[in-house]
Amino acid sequence: MSTTQIKTPKGTRDWAEDDLILRNAVFAKIRRVFELHGGAEIDTPVFELKSYLTDNYGEDTKLIYNLQERGGELCALRYDLTVPFARWLAMGNIRHIKRFQIGKVYRRDQPAVSRGRMREFFQCDFDYAGEFDSMVPDAEVVSITAEVFEALDLPVTIRINHRLILDGLFSALDKLPWDEVQKEMETKGLDASVATKLGGYVLLGSAGEFDLAASLEMLKSDPLLLKNADIQKGVEEVELLLQYLNAYGVATYVKFDLSLARGLDYYTGLIYEVVLDDEGTEAKLQVGSVAAGGRYDSLVGKFSSRDIPCVGISFGIDRILTVLKARQEANLKPQTSRRLDVWIIIASSNTLLVEQRIVIARELRQADISVDFDAKADKKPRKQMDVAKKSASVVVFLEYTDVSPGGIRVKTLALPEKNLDNATAVDRKDLVCEVKKRLA
Amino acid sequence: MSTTQIKTPKGTRDWAEDDLILRNAVFAKIRRVFELHGGAEIDTPVFELKSYLTDNYGEDTKLIYNLQERGGELCALRYDLTVPFARWLAMGNIRHIKRFQIGKVYRRDQPAVSRGRMREFFQCDFDYAGEFDSMVPDAEVVSITAEVFEALDLPVTIRINHRLILDGLFSALDKLPWDEVQKEMETKGLDASVATKLGGYVLLGSAGEFDLAASLEMLKSDPLLLKNADIQKGVEEVELLLQYLNAYGVATYVKFDLSLARGLDYYTGLIYEVVLDDEGTEAKLQVGSVAAGGRYDSLVGKFSSRDIPCVGISFGIDRILTVLKARQEANLKPQTSRRLDVWIIIASSNTLLVEQRIVIARELRQADISVDFDAKADKKPRKQMDVAKKSASVVVFLEYTDVSPGGIRVKTLALPEKNLDNATAVDRKDLVCEVKKRLA
Repeated sequence: MSTTQIKTPKGTRDWAEDDLILRNAVFAKIRRVFELHGGAEIDTPVFELKSYLTDNYGEDTKLIYNLQERGGELCALRYDLTVPFARWLAMGNIRHIKRFQIGKVYRRDQPAVSRGRMREFFQCDFDYAGEFDSMVPDAEVVSITAEVFEALDLPVTIRINHRLILDGLFSALDKLPWDEVQKEMETKGLDASVATKLGGYVLLGSAGEFDLAASLEMLKSDPLLLKNADIQKGVEEVELLLQYLNAYGVATYVKFDLSLARGLDYYTGLIYEVVLDDEGTEAKLQVGSVAAGGRYDSLVGKFSSRDIPCVGISFGIDRILTVLKARQEANLKPQTSRRLDVWIIIASSNTLLVEQRIVIARELRQADISVDFDAKADKKPRKQMDVAKKSASVVVFLEYTDVSPGGIRVKTLALPEKNLDNATAVDRKDLVCEVKKRLA
Repeated sequence: MSTTQIKTPKGTRDWAEDDLILRNAVFAKIRRVFELHGGAEIDTPVFELKSYLTDNYGEDTKLIYNLQERGGELCALRYDLTVPFARWLAMGNIRHIKRFQIGKVYRRDQPAVSRGRMREFFQCDFDYAGEFDSMVPDAEVVSITAEVFEALDLPVTIRINHRLILDGLFSALDKLPWDEVQKEMETKGLDASVATKLGGYVLLGSAGEFDLAASLEMLKSDPLLLKNADIQKGVEEVELLLQYLNAYGVATYVKFDLSLARGLDYYTGLIYEVVLDDEGTEAKLQVGSVAAGGRYDSLVGKFSSRDIPCVGISFGIDRILTVLKARQEANLKPQTSRRLDVWIIIASSNTLLVEQRIVIARELRQADISVDFDAKADKKPRKQMDVAKKSASVVVFLEYTDVSPGGIRVKTLALPEKNLDNATAVDRKDLVCEVKKRLA
């Protein structure tokens, strides 16, 4: 194989070093927000029975990865985490839950690596399932969305729309049936001719976005629209949402956007999409939306006789990481990813000192201090020091001596410090204590 | 779909609640041991180019899950984490690393769910790659293995053997060539006829196990064996290993086992397998080995012109979890998995109190306190209390009053406490403080 190019499959990647450290840090922050809201984690298999997946993604069903047939069940890699969640809900006896899941999903799409669009990519979903008071779960999910981006220090706008308002507008305008319009809107956003017709009722700003309260006022000011039952219900729900979002202190993040018409195969009520506020570097990356979701009240019923209404949000981790990484690089922050507490250096090549090194490493690790050393004993102390400086915060230096008990002298040195001669001798029995002092 | 049985694919499962909490706790403990040794995490795609996988697993290649062909690259789900690691090493410029990886792997085998044998299951690998002093990495990997089971409080025996000693014994005995013997040993363990022939040189105990030092003495006491270069080298390596394992304080876990002949497609030196010490409950589960590994010095060279010697260990997480769960159940430990810090209860059905609840929830969450409440406002306080008792440690109770400022009285109550009337009124501005006191 040495002549061909060794690689990962198209649209997939390995994770290591700073990228993985950043990813784990982002997961930890998001996970904490979920836990603060009482979210319970679940984990589902990477593949599902194929028949569960094929009905839910419209045109995009062709992007599903099937497993090779070998007799028995036909399976396919999961396309998102929402359908597996609905399948899980349908299997169990749970009638309400706040669940979250972080995992890889698979789409045989054209990859665009620089923008964080991959064939294997992460989703990170929070969903609130159950029959509850109107808009209480929806408001919490929108608030969680805002809190996650607050925790990540990324300024965002949450664009919202409501399926019933859209349905109602089109019906009030005697427009084409929903199915035909949605295709157009999915590919181009809100078409100019449609916008013109809507214009008589709702004035669109340049980005099609409005302050939420102002949009509601506009919709309510038109008696023709308010006569439409769908619009009436949609407006009532969005009004209640706004009231709760004010209580959560996150209403300022939210804008009404009539051109938003995403995920039409599942969503039945509120829908939303999160975009980064324009900040130069980020805009150039063209990552698109960094999170999206909405209410889907009929998906569980596809698997089970009892339906469970759900509302959820899915975070596009790979896009978020692309932006955070670009920001790190733009800020030219020094990489301070010293992984280890201690690096042990020995004065000379001697296998007896190898064992001393092992004994001391074990002792430190038992005190919850991370330790490493070079597994080649014949390296010059200066060379060992070069590695230590890149990897650890404290050096423990061992050398032979006639005066110390056991014939070994132990010294410590806090990094960054260039000169090993500046190391301080410590009493062998005080080593853990001295190292902890240096680390503090 | 409502008439058919909804399920996960054969040999796969969902993870939730206590099982997932236990799994995350086990991962955290193992991860900490790895980090204490300076391990760096990597993560690779769930599928690899099929050609990389097919040469490494002998007979078991038939268990690999292929993805359906759709033109372009042929891919297959990873069968373990070792081959992806070797592929990753071959792609990069890294010449030495201690890496770990935790992830799911896939084998189209006959599942045995009760024993933790699944088609989708976890592996958790630590590997030490690079040219180093003899047996220093090997000793560290064996020590990490012991430390992981110490951290999990599971008593184990680490059975070791050495490929060169096995090779040498067979060659000294003028036995069949290795390739033919290995097949027999793989399926049946050490065959009786082989054991008889070996018997002249090495006495086998009932379980084929020996104290490491005693086994070495036996091998060394036979001049015929020590003339064989392979055996000589193998014995020297195991002696040095024993010396280092003593320094690590883990030599007592290790037994020599000549019948151990696992993973023959990659391993080139030391091999080992971990079994649980017999303890009644565990023995009945028949989980088999709970971790296994060894030295594989030629695998990276299959992908690249430069070879990197490696030694590693793979933990069988699903089997370990099966045992830990059985132990939890046997001990009848009460499940104290209260996920939340606070549950908010409201006195009556009133939407104004819904917003108050949201405001207080946000305030507590901003102080890193996890909170939830029932998203149905019309539930009787006693019913809300029932949920609170199962879910949280502290109750915050809201009611209308004429006397408090803002018209809302706030009370707290530490659980378990049956009577909501015992809640103590707190000053609104001291709420976070009071809750933290109750949680402490």
